[in-house]
Amino acid sequence: MEYRFATRMSEMKPSTIREILKLTESADVISFAGGLPAPELFPVDDIRAAAERTLKSFGAQALQYGVSDGIKSLREQIAIDMKTRGVTCDADDILITTGSQQAIDLIGKIMLDPGDAIYTENPTYLAAIQAFQSFQAKFVPIPTDEGGIIPEALDEIAATKPAKFLYIISNFQNPTGRTLASERRAKIYEIAARRGFLIVEDDPYGRLRYKGEHIPPIKAMDDKGNVLYLSTFSKTVAPGLRTGWIVAPKGVRAKLLVAKQASDLHTSSFDQLLLDRYLRDFDNSVHVERIRRAYGERYAAMDAALSRSMGKGWSWTKPDGGMFLWLRGPEGTNTSEILSRAVRENVAFVPGVDFFPNHEGLNYMRLNFSNANPDTIRAGVSRLAAICGE
Amino acid sequence: MEYRFATRMSEMKPSTIREILKLTESADVISFAGGLPAPELFPVDDIRAAAERTLKSFGAQALQYGVSDGIKSLREQIAIDMKTRGVTCDADDILITTGSQQAIDLIGKIMLDPGDAIYTENPTYLAAIQAFQSFQAKFVPIPTDEGGIIPEALDEIAATKPAKFLYIISNFQNPTGRTLASERRAKIYEIAARRGFLIVEDDPYGRLRYKGEHIPPIKAMDDKGNVLYLSTFSKTVAPGLRTGWIVAPKGVRAKLLVAKQASDLHTSSFDQLLLDRYLRDFDNSVHVERIRRAYGERYAAMDAALSRSMGKGWSWTKPDGGMFLWLRGPEGTNTSEILSRAVRENVAFVPGVDFFPNHEGLNYMRLNFSNANPDTIRAGVSRLAAICGE
Repeated sequence: MEYRFATRMSEMKPSTIREILKLTESADVISFAGGLPAPELFPVDDIRAAAERTLKSFGAQALQYGVSDGIKSLREQIAIDMKTRGVTCDADDILITTGSQQAIDLIGKIMLDPGDAIYTENPTYLAAIQAFQSFQAKFVPIPTDEGGIIPEALDEIAATKPAKFLYIISNFQNPTGRTLASERRAKIYEIAARRGFLIVEDDPYGRLRYKGEHIPPIKAMDDKGNVLYLSTFSKTVAPGLRTGWIVAPKGVRAKLLVAKQASDLHTSSFDQLLLDRYLRDFDNSVHVERIRRAYGERYAAMDAALSRSMGKGWSWTKPDGGMFLWLRGPEGTNTSEILSRAVRENVAFVPGVDFFPNHEGLNYMRLNFSNANPDTIRAGVSRLAAICGE
Repeated sequence: MEYRFATRMSEMKPSTIREILKLTESADVISFAGGLPAPELFPVDDIRAAAERTLKSFGAQALQYGVSDGIKSLREQIAIDMKTRGVTCDADDILITTGSQQAIDLIGKIMLDPGDAIYTENPTYLAAIQAFQSFQAKFVPIPTDEGGIIPEALDEIAATKPAKFLYIISNFQNPTGRTLASERRAKIYEIAARRGFLIVEDDPYGRLRYKGEHIPPIKAMDDKGNVLYLSTFSKTVAPGLRTGWIVAPKGVRAKLLVAKQASDLHTSSFDQLLLDRYLRDFDNSVHVERIRRAYGERYAAMDAALSRSMGKGWSWTKPDGGMFLWLRGPEGTNTSEILSRAVRENVAFVPGVDFFPNHEGLNYMRLNFSNANPDTIRAGVSRLAAICGE
């Protein structure tokens, strides 16, 4: 039979990253493509102990259906963590999601009718574009510079083009690695309140700062219920457990809960209880400190290797944390063409074009530095520089 | 700020079941409301051994991001299982989902534009109604009897009301416990092919047959790529692991994969690897046999208790498997009102009305018999009968 798919499917394409990830499963490939944490640093032994204890003491609960909100004791742990980030909230303000990706999807589901506009950084996270495309959103990209979104540009655009919300990654942005400057956070919050749109603040990387001081998220100043804050255990513990969360104003959280029920009933009980046990029995800040240090070293190795080997006309960002840097080639560069050659030479990255809602930026590429050790990074950058210089 | 939600949210309500589940968390309540497996029968020790082995041998993979398709070795296990159900497929025909609920959601996502019609059994699974409502589907309920959907009724309705697909639970249906008669399966397959709609065959309970012989699913006769088949480990192993699957024709699976990427990237790597290990190292058919026997006893206890205590005018279905039976009260009965009184008397069920897309059936209720032992079932039915007889 001829299949008749929904209209939204004509706007959605398979994720470039996930297609590239499949190509790069071979051990010979040095991949700067994914957003993968360093697997050799995962706290496997502690997780194993936590899994064992969970199944010994809470086996039936771990294997049974649970509430859609997520397990309360885990939400209490998250509320404590949120406080150290500068956000006061309690367990009932939090909804557990099947990774941050689901949080993005649920927000699209409750907020977006076809044709509704959203503001995003330009460029922004590829899989958020994909998720919002599935709700047939209209993207209004906002100009950015080294300090993230330019508030004046946002205000000017918002004056004539209304939107449901601004989607923003405030720390060590994906793909650029840039951080929204402290003074811009208050400005953007003020603009959103005045212009009447919500802020969806996605903060998966905030804990991964290897330089400088923590900046409180926009959510920290939210006394009006205008900010949805998203984060995840994917970068600080393990992405394989697919556990993230949303901190949302009551009226919004109630809708998110209904959408969550319809989407997957609830997130894995076992993974949630296991994380709760792990966070209670072990000091995760020790683990975070370890990955922070490692990522800082890896970033430095990549930055130095790029400085040594990239040709004239190439420049890149200098992130203070996170997992990515963002490379810009001379005008006329086509990083998608470079990728075809790179994959043959066993090195991979993600071309920049897919991070631009309007498909600009043919001369950009995103490099991940968390998933390879300094020696491998040097070898990979050297291969890549040779290809870029051809 | 005044929140402006998407149009679809006005059609979606919180799931009655999940709201009732929250009320019935107290130990004093005898709940026939949920669709919960018997927690005391979970294979906790075997799962614990499998978790331990998974983290010892595949720790980094279990905690890392994975492909959206799902882990291949688990899909291979599922393909073997599908063969014993009468369906020939291989790992590449299968997509792992975050429980069956996500399978339903993804199918809605790829198939449904607002206003698109779908056929369903009348009544049908409440959370499927909720999921399809989130895509603003128009429901076309098809009359059913003891043998499930009546093919002639389907054919007649399909002649004048076209729809994207038929959503059908072929074995031990939720909420009625009824099974689609063997000879009707071929008829329905033929009607769908002739009238040009897909069949979405949801089969979470097929393994839980405690009486009679296995009937091959509709998917077993699908040589045209017209059937999407859904199942899950929720009933045969553990729902807390939120792992289900779809067997789909290639052209449909490719779209489902894109939707899966946007929805939650992938299902928990740890839960998938753990299930794969468990299925390889332990004989799950022993576990299924144990729950089958227990559920058969529980069903018999409930049926006998109902026969002893329910007043005149009450009747109920006699399922050959699954977890539910379906009670019909005399005309004029309002089971939602009965529920308010029942909860005060510490017994719970789900009123029938929410299982009818058009909100008929005020005099029905769904009773779950898998989640309480025979003594508790007798005590609960006795409380319930007293309230129904008031």
